[in-house]
Amino acid sequence: MRQYETFELVYEGPVLANEYARVDVTAEFCCEDETKVVKGFYDGDGRYVVRFLPEKTGNYTWHVSGVVDGCGEAFCDPAGEGHHGIVKAVETHFECEDGTLFTPFGTTVYALASQEDALVEETLESLKNAPFNKVRMCVFPKHYDYNHNEPPYYAFEKKEDGSWDVGRPNLQFWHRFEAILHRIAAMDIQIDLILFHPYDRWGFARLPQQDNLKYLDYLLRRLSAMPNIWWSLANEYDLNLASKSMRDWEEIEEYVAANDPYGHPLSNHNCMAFWDASRPAITHASYQTKALTEIARWIEKYQKPLIIDECCYEGNLQHFWGSISGREMVYRFWRCYASGAYCTHGETFLSDDEILWWARGGKLKGESPKRIAFLREIIESLPGALTPIQNGLVKLALATPEQLEEMLKVLPEEMRGFVQTFGNSLQMMNETERLIHLSGEHEWTAQVKEEAYLWFNDKQCYAIQDLRLPEDKKYRIEMIDVWEMTREVIEEEVTGPTRIHLPGREGLAVLATRIG
Amino acid sequence: MRQYETFELVYEGPVLANEYARVDVTAEFCCEDETKVVKGFYDGDGRYVVRFLPEKTGNYTWHVSGVVDGCGEAFCDPAGEGHHGIVKAVETHFECEDGTLFTPFGTTVYALASQEDALVEETLESLKNAPFNKVRMCVFPKHYDYNHNEPPYYAFEKKEDGSWDVGRPNLQFWHRFEAILHRIAAMDIQIDLILFHPYDRWGFARLPQQDNLKYLDYLLRRLSAMPNIWWSLANEYDLNLASKSMRDWEEIEEYVAANDPYGHPLSNHNCMAFWDASRPAITHASYQTKALTEIARWIEKYQKPLIIDECCYEGNLQHFWGSISGREMVYRFWRCYASGAYCTHGETFLSDDEILWWARGGKLKGESPKRIAFLREIIESLPGALTPIQNGLVKLALATPEQLEEMLKVLPEEMRGFVQTFGNSLQMMNETERLIHLSGEHEWTAQVKEEAYLWFNDKQCYAIQDLRLPEDKKYRIEMIDVWEMTREVIEEEVTGPTRIHLPGREGLAVLATRIG
Repeated sequence: MRQYETFELVYEGPVLANEYARVDVTAEFCCEDETKVVKGFYDGDGRYVVRFLPEKTGNYTWHVSGVVDGCGEAFCDPAGEGHHGIVKAVETHFECEDGTLFTPFGTTVYALASQEDALVEETLESLKNAPFNKVRMCVFPKHYDYNHNEPPYYAFEKKEDGSWDVGRPNLQFWHRFEAILHRIAAMDIQIDLILFHPYDRWGFARLPQQDNLKYLDYLLRRLSAMPNIWWSLANEYDLNLASKSMRDWEEIEEYVAANDPYGHPLSNHNCMAFWDASRPAITHASYQTKALTEIARWIEKYQKPLIIDECCYEGNLQHFWGSISGREMVYRFWRCYASGAYCTHGETFLSDDEILWWARGGKLKGESPKRIAFLREIIESLPGALTPIQNGLVKLALATPEQLEEMLKVLPEEMRGFVQTFGNSLQMMNETERLIHLSGEHEWTAQVKEEAYLWFNDKQCYAIQDLRLPEDKKYRIEMIDVWEMTREVIEEEVTGPTRIHLPGREGLAVLATRIG
Repeated sequence: MRQYETFELVYEGPVLANEYARVDVTAEFCCEDETKVVKGFYDGDGRYVVRFLPEKTGNYTWHVSGVVDGCGEAFCDPAGEGHHGIVKAVETHFECEDGTLFTPFGTTVYALASQEDALVEETLESLKNAPFNKVRMCVFPKHYDYNHNEPPYYAFEKKEDGSWDVGRPNLQFWHRFEAILHRIAAMDIQIDLILFHPYDRWGFARLPQQDNLKYLDYLLRRLSAMPNIWWSLANEYDLNLASKSMRDWEEIEEYVAANDPYGHPLSNHNCMAFWDASRPAITHASYQTKALTEIARWIEKYQKPLIIDECCYEGNLQHFWGSISGREMVYRFWRCYASGAYCTHGETFLSDDEILWWARGGKLKGESPKRIAFLREIIESLPGALTPIQNGLVKLALATPEQLEEMLKVLPEEMRGFVQTFGNSLQMMNETERLIHLSGEHEWTAQVKEEAYLWFNDKQCYAIQDLRLPEDKKYRIEMIDVWEMTREVIEEEVTGPTRIHLPGREGLAVLATRIG
């Protein structure tokens, strides 16, 4: 038994042919004064499996009861190299269980597990050489443009009437599915597992709610003990409201949270209306949106990490969402990270064989991945997690008249008139016009406490830029070309208000890191 | 006397030394059954001048009374070539008095009239070779970054206490000012005259309201008969609320409208809060904003022309508003025109001599003007004015639940489920989140009835694009590279739903024009 690695117990028991999704197998694992209860699952051929993820070191005892029983004990050794435990949301960033910072750099291969073996292999090979440490993928197959293939297996057996028998998981499916998940996890990639989605011709999107929960029960028994897994309730939950009401979705959310013994990251992904990130079980916001200017406001509001899990894909499709350039994809990544959020890549280049990375995998063809690698290297070299620096105008825009009064009181005399002028004008606009108006004046800035400051200048072609740095600390300033992937120290040991000189072109970032 | 050209009468009368801004001189001009009353002004040295802009052909008689008097008659000849009369807002576009379509392609030289003669000459020479047919310029001098010079003259004489004596216009100022206006007008450029602005160290922004009206009275008597002039009440009226209340601004607006006998275009320009374009005297919206995705919604709301009179300037300043690339400036122009609106250029490149085109003029240095010329050529070749095609999702987003029901009823069966799904999700968002969310999915499309359709694809790198054209008409399709300034016919005689093939890169526009 090893900390942060799945521990598995296997028992022989009665062979089941029906309703084996919810077998009566419960295990209690005790370490010191802490007890964790987990449920076992039926794995076919009379095999009953209990999986457990030990998160502490020390002596564990267990007791299994139900259809099968047993007990035992083992010493749990400290984590092996590279094993950090499950990812947890901490304030507005992520850390692994052992405290290691985790910064998501995701991609999507939605229907990865529904592809033939050769394509899966090719995809895994691509992932090995790619900069991504999180992949969004579905349990169920996908039916959509460029997605017409049948999967090798389905998650359930069928009833005689042709409908899905959710009580009888298809073990060939689950064994193959898990094998793929393990291959991905072995590459240190988090699996952002999409439990439901609307792109369906088989009926998986329209199961009755009791079947939804039964399926989740089985899935959670099997997969919860994997350290690298996240729960994404849906891709675009809101396109599925005809078959699952808001109350159904809430029940699904609550069910997953209640039946996951470890608290894996949990979120729900939208097409239009965002899932309410303030709900207690939601660990982080997983947003589809292109309105990246609002990131700081949302992080401030929810005080949880925010992943822009869909902001269009690099490609050339006829669809709006699948036709941004590599440069635009890279800029969107920088906008997110320089706002204290995270971004997810996807790639949709037209192809005669209908194999587009975004959903089916294969080879990466775009120009963005190597620039995302460059960004990742920079972000991971920072001394902590970035948090957004809210634009002053937006703060002013969101202030009530009373808050505006308070803001003015603490300002230096010489700034008061100026701020009051803008504040008064903003107060005359309604919230919608205010935020839309200001979204066009957005500056992308984030900080790691007073240790580092990041500006992504995006379209702004500053020849000079005025930075406000703390007066009592010294910083080194680097200029970064996000597309050319160059970084250059342009100032050493500056402090306080600092004017820097730049070449006056698009796509530059500026990084100030504390020295000494 | 010639139609659409200023007709001037000069009388000798008493020499005045004080309070000559509002002399008692009234003229009635009659043509057929129509009478127009205009006021005359004192031009110094006992000269009293009446200016009139005849808009009809035929026999005019006039009668002047007050401090001076006289009468006369003249036949007004039909308009000479190139004379089209004042610009009028018609529906959501502009036409000259004679019905010629006028499509604004503006620039800013805010403090043009406050520069030394040599610089004014250089600026006029630049304008001669530039693609602009409207220039935003101020009456009063400008005090701001890169604007520190004193003007050659001021609009008023001073009182003994050093304050401005608005009752005594400085005739050296007005003669020189008018000479500049006439030089600009002679190049067929509309003067979008800014009557007030906040960037001031002389006190012109802080005159008492009765002086504001007295100044306007004099200005309107002098300039109203110029055919090429527009009234922009302010640049950034809302940064001036400390000295002019909203009620003061309304009074200024109403005063200008009431004292302009011809109805020149009239608007008011904001920094943050937009001036209410639904006010009856406002002929068009003059917006500072970078939120170009909202254009179609605003045009729909106000049913007036919309000019984006400030959307950042091509340049490299340390300021957000003065540091976009030439490419970005060109893209913003295309976004505006492909939304049925108009855009205004400005240029702010750092310069040792502090002469930046945006406010002081000189030479144009940027990369955008020649591309704006290319755009202008295309737009002016269209068979009419462009009107926005509102994005279907935005329409859906703005619909009330009842309107959504109505929309669904008229949809073909096969689209209903899809639209209902999106509609329902959008209904769950508040208006702010809805519009901000959708602003990121904007498509820029406009049409000239069923005669022409324009798509600006902006960042979208479509390799294929699906156009919806009317079934009963035939179109030629051109692909336009807005930066490389190329246009190429890619389809002839297509009709109805049409799939076109494009090279999958940014910055392309597609134009469908009706043939046959």
